[in-house]
Amino acid sequence: MASVYGTKLKLSIFGESHGEAIGVVIDGFPAGLKLDFDAISAFMKRRAPGGSFSTKRKEADIPRIVSGVSDGYTNGYPICAVIENTNQHSASYQDKMTVPRPSHADFAAAIKYGEHTELHGGGHFSGRLTAPLVFAGALCSQYLATKGVEIAAHIKQMLDVTDRAFDMNVTADTLRELKTHAFPTLDEKAATAFADIINAAQEKGDSVGAKLECAAVGLPVSLGEHIFESVEAEISQLMFAIPAVKGIEFGAGFDFCKMYGSEANDAYEYVDGKIVTKTNNCGGIVGGMTTGMPIIFSVAMKPTPSIFTEQDSVDMANGVNTKLQINGRHDPCIAVRAVPVIEAGCAVALTELMLKADGRKL
Amino acid sequence: MASVYGTKLKLSIFGESHGEAIGVVIDGFPAGLKLDFDAISAFMKRRAPGGSFSTKRKEADIPRIVSGVSDGYTNGYPICAVIENTNQHSASYQDKMTVPRPSHADFAAAIKYGEHTELHGGGHFSGRLTAPLVFAGALCSQYLATKGVEIAAHIKQMLDVTDRAFDMNVTADTLRELKTHAFPTLDEKAATAFADIINAAQEKGDSVGAKLECAAVGLPVSLGEHIFESVEAEISQLMFAIPAVKGIEFGAGFDFCKMYGSEANDAYEYVDGKIVTKTNNCGGIVGGMTTGMPIIFSVAMKPTPSIFTEQDSVDMANGVNTKLQINGRHDPCIAVRAVPVIEAGCAVALTELMLKADGRKL
Amino acid sequence: MASVYGTKLKLSIFGESHGEAIGVVIDGFPAGLKLDFDAISAFMKRRAPGGSFSTKRKEADIPRIVSGVSDGYTNGYPICAVIENTNQHSASYQDKMTVPRPSHADFAAAIKYGEHTELHGGGHFSGRLTAPLVFAGALCSQYLATKGVEIAAHIKQMLDVTDRAFDMNVTADTLRELKTHAFPTLDEKAATAFADIINAAQEKGDSVGAKLECAAVGLPVSLGEHIFESVEAEISQLMFAIPAVKGIEFGAGFDFCKMYGSEANDAYEYVDGKIVTKTNNCGGIVGGMTTGMPIIFSVAMKPTPSIFTEQDSVDMANGVNTKLQINGRHDPCIAVRAVPVIEAGCAVALTELMLKADGRKL
Amino acid sequence: MASVYGTKLKLSIFGESHGEAIGVVIDGFPAGLKLDFDAISAFMKRRAPGGSFSTKRKEADIPRIVSGVSDGYTNGYPICAVIENTNQHSASYQDKMTVPRPSHADFAAAIKYGEHTELHGGGHFSGRLTAPLVFAGALCSQYLATKGVEIAAHIKQMLDVTDRAFDMNVTADTLRELKTHAFPTLDEKAATAFADIINAAQEKGDSVGAKLECAAVGLPVSLGEHIFESVEAEISQLMFAIPAVKGIEFGAGFDFCKMYGSEANDAYEYVDGKIVTKTNNCGGIVGGMTTGMPIIFSVAMKPTPSIFTEQDSVDMANGVNTKLQINGRHDPCIAVRAVPVIEAGCAVALTELMLKADGRKL
Repeated sequence: MASVYGTKLKLSIFGESHGEAIGVVIDGFPAGLKLDFDAISAFMKRRAPGGSFSTKRKEADIPRIVSGVSDGYTNGYPICAVIENTNQHSASYQDKMTVPRPSHADFAAAIKYGEHTELHGGGHFSGRLTAPLVFAGALCSQYLATKGVEIAAHIKQMLDVTDRAFDMNVTADTLRELKTHAFPTLDEKAATAFADIINAAQEKGDSVGAKLECAAVGLPVSLGEHIFESVEAEISQLMFAIPAVKGIEFGAGFDFCKMYGSEANDAYEYVDGKIVTKTNNCGGIVGGMTTGMPIIFSVAMKPTPSIFTEQDSVDMANGVNTKLQINGRHDPCIAVRAVPVIEAGCAVALTELMLKADGRKL
Repeated sequence: MASVYGTKLKLSIFGESHGEAIGVVIDGFPAGLKLDFDAISAFMKRRAPGGSFSTKRKEADIPRIVSGVSDGYTNGYPICAVIENTNQHSASYQDKMTVPRPSHADFAAAIKYGEHTELHGGGHFSGRLTAPLVFAGALCSQYLATKGVEIAAHIKQMLDVTDRAFDMNVTADTLRELKTHAFPTLDEKAATAFADIINAAQEKGDSVGAKLECAAVGLPVSLGEHIFESVEAEISQLMFAIPAVKGIEFGAGFDFCKMYGSEANDAYEYVDGKIVTKTNNCGGIVGGMTTGMPIIFSVAMKPTPSIFTEQDSVDMANGVNTKLQINGRHDPCIAVRAVPVIEAGCAVALTELMLKADGRKL
Repeated sequence: MASVYGTKLKLSIFGESHGEAIGVVIDGFPAGLKLDFDAISAFMKRRAPGGSFSTKRKEADIPRIVSGVSDGYTNGYPICAVIENTNQHSASYQDKMTVPRPSHADFAAAIKYGEHTELHGGGHFSGRLTAPLVFAGALCSQYLATKGVEIAAHIKQMLDVTDRAFDMNVTADTLRELKTHAFPTLDEKAATAFADIINAAQEKGDSVGAKLECAAVGLPVSLGEHIFESVEAEISQLMFAIPAVKGIEFGAGFDFCKMYGSEANDAYEYVDGKIVTKTNNCGGIVGGMTTGMPIIFSVAMKPTPSIFTEQDSVDMANGVNTKLQINGRHDPCIAVRAVPVIEAGCAVALTELMLKADGRKL
Repeated sequence: MASVYGTKLKLSIFGESHGEAIGVVIDGFPAGLKLDFDAISAFMKRRAPGGSFSTKRKEADIPRIVSGVSDGYTNGYPICAVIENTNQHSASYQDKMTVPRPSHADFAAAIKYGEHTELHGGGHFSGRLTAPLVFAGALCSQYLATKGVEIAAHIKQMLDVTDRAFDMNVTADTLRELKTHAFPTLDEKAATAFADIINAAQEKGDSVGAKLECAAVGLPVSLGEHIFESVEAEISQLMFAIPAVKGIEFGAGFDFCKMYGSEANDAYEYVDGKIVTKTNNCGGIVGGMTTGMPIIFSVAMKPTPSIFTEQDSVDMANGVNTKLQINGRHDPCIAVRAVPVIEAGCAVALTELMLKADGRKL
């Protein structure tokens, strides 16, 4: 009842980690967009496992578009993409889950769906389900590009190491360039430091969390609806659809609690006949609506809960405490592959907001 | 198109700061609940202006329930509460808005709705519109209480001063007691320090931001739906419906970016035959679902944008830069009155999740 | 959970027959429309009781617009209209319902909401709740008029007497003229015959059903969305929101079952450079989308279930069969006052479809 | 934006007649139901082409369930079924549509989606898209069977020939037996007469419309929500999702316009301690809610618009009138195969209503 999103742009995501296939139906996507399939592949490849800092599992992750596209153009009908699962029944997942993995969905899911649910590899809660979201985000990005909107994200913090923040006047060019980086940081020095942290964690069989920052530029003024459909709410819904995301802040975010109004307020001024703000503490959103300045937000990602240290847990079949040893292949830091997922979620939310924006006044 | 919330519990909020009345229609509220009207009044009074740390404007804010309640019980029909505006046309708001107030909705709203929109006192974007939300939250709190759920919030940080955080095993009794505090902190010392900060800001005609923390206890395991309707997404939608909220984090939140998985994971254990976690870094939510542990989240609130220092802005009627001087009465720190609003938003989200939870398995 | 409608235009209807007030919140109505309040009153007056063929109860039914309108223009915010109930506690409704009235909502509602529901005068199921729908429809009609759309309905059949059907090329002028008729028929002869039937039924303490036909002209081609949001589905949802409506047919409707494809198909042709159909058996809708021809549909309304003959029923308090005698004032034929309600429902559905239509292609 | 249905049970249908595949994602289906795959196949086979009275096109139409089912049980996650299209590019559909077929979606769809839409075989508007709906309906029927609900439909009228109507006390056994009939009528004589009509139409290259009647028994009292989510509205939305459906009536339906209230009202009585109605003119629904009596409704289906007689149309590429000759294989009467589609749509609507019904009172 909940893998469905949206009112004008509607997503319906399906599949389990070890099921036959995963995918998405995208309903309401505008007709007439010539798709750049290479760009879709490149977008998805940034999320796919197999890189230096990610699980060694090989997921082909090639979406097969079975509807909604004719002769390379969107035709106005629902777009369904199916991604086959190639290694559905690996030996390490053979039995029913009885010992829930700490900080995984296992425990709550078992209670929710009962004995017939499927939790191998996380079932429908697996991070693998972000692949269809990235597919949808890739299409939305191409739609947004026709409107002059560009989106990119980077890792901003890991332990006590930080990358440079986005400039308040960040440009589309900077964002496009960022997406070509081998490691998603603005400064190369941060990339090296982050890589060192990840490698060290991996050697210990541990994992590490991170903060990511995302920017979107080129938006018209006044996207977003009053009270319950603010830009913040729309983006948050997509961000919390991504496993491991546990916090979000817009603009100055939690730093606002250390500020006076006289520092925090973003004064208006005309620059080249256009109204802009002198600062962008609000992250491009005021009253739940876009101001035309770059949207800037950060998300907190918890460390991958799959670690190789022995952990305490419970044996639900026998009602006793027990120990749990996780095997298999897991990302020591999910944040690296999460960067395109964050961008994708942002693209989906902004497309929905763009499509909803029509008809607000005569 | 957006002051409407929910799928089982539906809210439709209406009204403008200086219009005739504000209010809410609550559709889908269960029949048969005996309402405690004194408790509703007390809840709303905590939000109402007039306290030591709030605007001196007197809002009667007495909701008139015109439907959905018979003989003191909810009757299953939509509940409409109307709050009359008593001082609709104060002199200081007489003219059309042409100089947008920094970090207020004015600018984006004017672009969105055009010349016929209404921005006196913020129009529909006014913080006054949280009154109907608090009314809805008060009812939801009473519904949740019948299920053993209790919710309370406190101010956790202002500048460099912090209140004690909620204990990971915070109880319903603690939460009920907290709501009786004259100033919403766990420690009295923090209350004094926060009050000093607010008074100092007020004297300078300035304002100050804050971080608030909210807890909900007594929830069943596995509320929340997969992917797009996570507990985090539901609560976030309500939080971002509150003006000035610019960030939200669950459990360890942004501190996760400084943690290893071996520190972050919440191990399971049986205590008195019940499965609990030894830590609660996840804030009571894993995989988007409740774990049965207390839900803990914090929100960032920006400083009230209405300050009395002269600010830079633009004159949209004449297309030139100008100066803006805000007069009137405004809270130096909205966080104090925001505490019950946060609780109300949380109560609404959790009620929706409770009502949606049925029918998930045979 | 269900008095809420729509995705772009959202209605939330509240109130009970004998409660304090009834009304509606309309969210998503475009800003900038100058409202014609006299036209709204005139529209609502056509539904109001007090005419020759309706209950003698006097309902003031003057909506008080408390939000969403500034200086006579819609301001883009939710529009809330409140209609006070003047005679809330008439003597004839004093006790709890224990003997359900045949073909009224009483029985199912009592089971649904339990002992605390409110069924005096039908509670929230009362036909009186169509007043807020007519208010919403009056606003939508004014919006649609700015797009060149006109809507009107008439009584088409009662017992074996029929009025003339709408011509397939019915014009906006005809529809506007129809709405000025004292009795809503195209032919005056039918008006007289219908009036005779109603008067005869009233004398016997009985009631009578009717078929109504509605037309909408001036619509653009291709409104309506594929599969689940067809024009037929949208209009049907609104029609079945009206008490007593038990059937709907578009164009030839149930006569299609007597036709061959060679008779039924609507051939295309160019007339004055515009593509039209030579016949309009499809009622202006093909594939769930508008064809640009007039939308024509009919609805079946059952006789008012409140009749003055003694009826069989059950005494739910004592679990025995019993007799029921209904008193009070009731319309012998609800169809006369239903005409503007049908028009209003149609206007709401078409406004929603117009507002949803944007963004379908690049 | 509209092939998505529901709030608790959500359907997202995708695919085009000549695309790679069609299918459906079903979100919110309860976990723990052991699926009877043979029964699903049998249900779908009743809709599949290839019978005596249907197109000779051979569609394999075997759904591949790629998610949501584990070890034969629903697992609580979204269920996706994909049906591959085997003959995607038949010669007769090679070119772009420029001459719209009368009473088909072609014309409006071309206007709606522009030059890049896909109309071969009707595109997403094809009757073939009812296959995924039938799949969903088959699952819902199995869910409803666990609650004691049974649904079946038959052809009731064609030209001036009629089948017997459902008895007002129709039983589950009768409905189960009806579904085994080679030709879907209650009386064998009607089957023969209908077959003769269809054969005669086919010989002339013509088609014929029909009226179908559907019954659902075993429902609890008070399903259905007030005003906008009545049982009638829910069922109508599903019925109008089926191509060719142009009307729907519940219980006495359009015959109500010939009735007095004293004839129409359904009196209550106790029978074996249970409250029932002596007649069932309301078709099991009063006030938009179930009464516990059988739900009875009829739908009008227009004749298949694809006929082999030369028809008038327009050449949209050249802006002139022209003649159109349709070739290929088409059902002379879609009603025969529509019977299981009607049942499926009804099953989907009733499942949604059952899942929504929880939480209405304390």
